[in-house]
Amino acid sequence: MEESFINTAIASWKLVVGRIDKRFAGLDNEQLQKQVAPNKNRLFYLLGHLTAVHDRMSPLLGIGERLHPELDEVYITNPDRTLADPLSADDLKKTWNDVNAAVISGVEKFSAEDWLKKHSAVSDEDFAKDPTRNRLALFLNRTNHASFHAGQAILVK
Amino acid sequence: MEESFINTAIASWKLVVGRIDKRFAGLDNEQLQKQVAPNKNRLFYLLGHLTAVHDRMSPLLGIGERLHPELDEVYITNPDRTLADPLSADDLKKTWNDVNAAVISGVEKFSAEDWLKKHSAVSDEDFAKDPTRNRLALFLNRTNHASFHAGQAILVK
Repeated sequence: MEESFINTAIASWKLVVGRIDKRFAGLDNEQLQKQVAPNKNRLFYLLGHLTAVHDRMSPLLGIGERLHPELDEVYITNPDRTLADPLSADDLKKTWNDVNAAVISGVEKFSAEDWLKKHSAVSDEDFAKDPTRNRLALFLNRTNHASFHAGQAILVK
Repeated sequence: MEESFINTAIASWKLVVGRIDKRFAGLDNEQLQKQVAPNKNRLFYLLGHLTAVHDRMSPLLGIGERLHPELDEVYITNPDRTLADPLSADDLKKTWNDVNAAVISGVEKFSAEDWLKKHSAVSDEDFAKDPTRNRLALFLNRTNHASFHAGQAILVK
């Protein structure tokens, strides 16, 4: 029965990430420079932001080292149009796919017990007080975060 | 252990719905008339849409009859600005809260077995082929749907 719950959560992640894949796959660099609304983030920034956030999931979930820590300064620490994009549109799309492949490959190896372990951004003390701050919570939270930005990314053609 | 998975999924829903509550609570009717981007949905329409979609969850999850089927024509079947809003901003906010209270009250009574039952929009035959089309999948899917529109709702002040 645990396995059914876990498979359902993973399927939900794949559905959301798959829709974002589709949204961005056909866009070239010029289209990725469009902002989702006046003075709001560019599509390029959103994809960079999602890539950096998903890359951070690997250490947070205990999967392993992350692949691209250099993305954080541009796409997490700073708002859009502060620093130059450090990679091309094609390289960003490739990185997005690599990062998601690492996350999926990691979580598909988790046992039910692994899913309920604390994620590494929570202290032992805080986790003892609130055991819902587990890896599954972080995974669902990041699924929602991806949906949040997917809702913005569809506003522009 | 099933209980931990379920509690985590319910906590994720509450987090997303709670953020939407906060986003809309302080807005008056005039502010709710703003569009999230040029020629896109008004905040009022988004809240109506989320309310109608969450209301539909009650029969889909086997919780019971829905409370406000009259919202579907305005906020699901038709795009924004096709039909007049059938209720005031205050009544819409009250309805949003009522509908979510019904959903939470229903799912908090589910056993682990209940969560893995099929939801009522799937035929017995299709469910036999794909048992991940269960109530938990629908619940996670609607959590993502709410996040999707929450991402749009924060684009306008």
